[in-house]
Amino acid sequence: MHALASAATAALRYTVPMPPRPETDPRYDARVRESFARQRFLHAIGATLEHVAPGEVDVRLPFRADLTQQHGFLHAGAMTTVVDTACGYAALTLMPPDAAVLSAEFKVNLLAPGRGEAIVARARVLKSGRTLSVVRGDVFALEHGEERLVATMLATMMAVRDRGLSD
Amino acid sequence: MHALASAATAALRYTVPMPPRPETDPRYDARVRESFARQRFLHAIGATLEHVAPGEVDVRLPFRADLTQQHGFLHAGAMTTVVDTACGYAALTLMPPDAAVLSAEFKVNLLAPGRGEAIVARARVLKSGRTLSVVRGDVFALEHGEERLVATMLATMMAVRDRGLSD
Amino acid sequence: MHALASAATAALRYTVPMPPRPETDPRYDARVRESFARQRFLHAIGATLEHVAPGEVDVRLPFRADLTQQHGFLHAGAMTTVVDTACGYAALTLMPPDAAVLSAEFKVNLLAPGRGEAIVARARVLKSGRTLSVVRGDVFALEHGEERLVATMLATMMAVRDRGLSD
Amino acid sequence: MHALASAATAALRYTVPMPPRPETDPRYDARVRESFARQRFLHAIGATLEHVAPGEVDVRLPFRADLTQQHGFLHAGAMTTVVDTACGYAALTLMPPDAAVLSAEFKVNLLAPGRGEAIVARARVLKSGRTLSVVRGDVFALEHGEERLVATMLATMMAVRDRGLSD
Repeated sequence: MHALASAATAALRYTVPMPPRPETDPRYDARVRESFARQRFLHAIGATLEHVAPGEVDVRLPFRADLTQQHGFLHAGAMTTVVDTACGYAALTLMPPDAAVLSAEFKVNLLAPGRGEAIVARARVLKSGRTLSVVRGDVFALEHGEERLVATMLATMMAVRDRGLSD
Repeated sequence: MHALASAATAALRYTVPMPPRPETDPRYDARVRESFARQRFLHAIGATLEHVAPGEVDVRLPFRADLTQQHGFLHAGAMTTVVDTACGYAALTLMPPDAAVLSAEFKVNLLAPGRGEAIVARARVLKSGRTLSVVRGDVFALEHGEERLVATMLATMMAVRDRGLSD
Repeated sequence: MHALASAATAALRYTVPMPPRPETDPRYDARVRESFARQRFLHAIGATLEHVAPGEVDVRLPFRADLTQQHGFLHAGAMTTVVDTACGYAALTLMPPDAAVLSAEFKVNLLAPGRGEAIVARARVLKSGRTLSVVRGDVFALEHGEERLVATMLATMMAVRDRGLSD
Repeated sequence: MHALASAATAALRYTVPMPPRPETDPRYDARVRESFARQRFLHAIGATLEHVAPGEVDVRLPFRADLTQQHGFLHAGAMTTVVDTACGYAALTLMPPDAAVLSAEFKVNLLAPGRGEAIVARARVLKSGRTLSVVRGDVFALEHGEERLVATMLATMMAVRDRGLSD
């Protein structure tokens, strides 16, 4: 009980709300949805956008047999695809209109096998800088009405300008 | 407001309380403190143990000029030393008596320069397995009575047995 | 010239040959190929096994429009899928017959956009331990007959036993 | 034998020599040495600069009892301090005169306990971009005249301008 309470307090402290940035694109929601719609790989695997807010994006992926690895679990690469995408768009929600987003790097820890009806990746921005954003993304598996943390990402996203890319 | 509320909710969901593990050493608190006292490097840099609970350890490091890098900020290596230590001991609090803890790997994102009066590294276990534990550690700088997130670690800690090591 | 020579020397020094491990499965080649054939996600995206040797696996992925992200480049998730797979099987080539392999964690740095005719991921084991293996994987894009380094992975792979999994 | 030969070939291919960049500071060597001399934490732990070339920096740290963790091995934080520094300066050797270098993030895998007479961290740049550089750093322990790979880092370094920092 005590451990839970103090962990919850600490966690609240970590989720500093993103300061309203004057240069943020007010069209961030439409922008993320339009860019997501151009992601052919996400369409191919069946991922959908579940939630978009300043500094936050959730992406859902229903379990499918053609997304599995050799033991029948969801492939770590499929999990990475959805959580990387969620982290990138979470960063984009806070960027100015002239910036596009690219993944610079990410790390993923796999905590439990991916199985169940679906996974949902929830990305939250820890820091939104002019060039680099740092984003945390947690992946939950949904099974029998319960959520279980199965992977977590810590990612660095980059705002790019003047390269002929747009989001 | 809305963004904050939903981030806080999400964060709460992430901090799954550690299930009480029957094999956990009931002497975890004394064990962490005794092992910490044997860490000569931590003593040399002036770090102290601030908080020990199941799945949680905080370590504090007062700012000192001989811990700085070339621009006068706290060296990333000094920050890493304290947050790695916090993550390792957070994992150890949930391990059985016959296991010692070693860092297998970690990633650190540096979010802001380390300056102020002190830093405190807060580690929380995300998963405690028989061999591997996954731990998140956030580093806050304390300046003028405020806390600012300056770095975050995502680490894999290993329980080792039968290697002549003890904690 | 001088820089090249010394970098090459240093690189040679890094590629410590894997010591022949008495417990390694002599059937490692067939084992990797059979396990790879059960990877439904890899089959779906069109990846193939190119090279298997002790401590080494290469996987190839021809470029396809349905594997792209919003700017038309190969999705980072697709790159991660192939290099994670190459790293896992490189670790498996050195494991005993009773172990299966799971990804514990990985980090990927994306160096250049993924475009061209195909990518090839080349994984080389840095350390093969009883439980954990550390593997480096480089991803090259093949374009107009040239290879360009577009991503690099540093991964921790885990040998699992007694969980009802086999490779 | 065959495995060694092919690993060596692959490794050579990875160490693409850094293209001579017209904007690189021709004073890179003096610049790295002067900046290193201002690193108070490195001086405190006894680290020295061993090698500076375009895209390459080596840093050496003699073993000292006050740098150890609870089992008497070199603390992972001390190893990280020297390899982070080597990676940062390796990136700086290829930057223009108006840029300073900051660590954006790094990942370290610990392969073997740090013991012996000294460690040496060898950093080599994989990619030098206008803003971000990706650098690999290997840490070797020197014991009884032999070198053993004990840790490896994969790091993202950032060129910063207009922040009042200089190197």
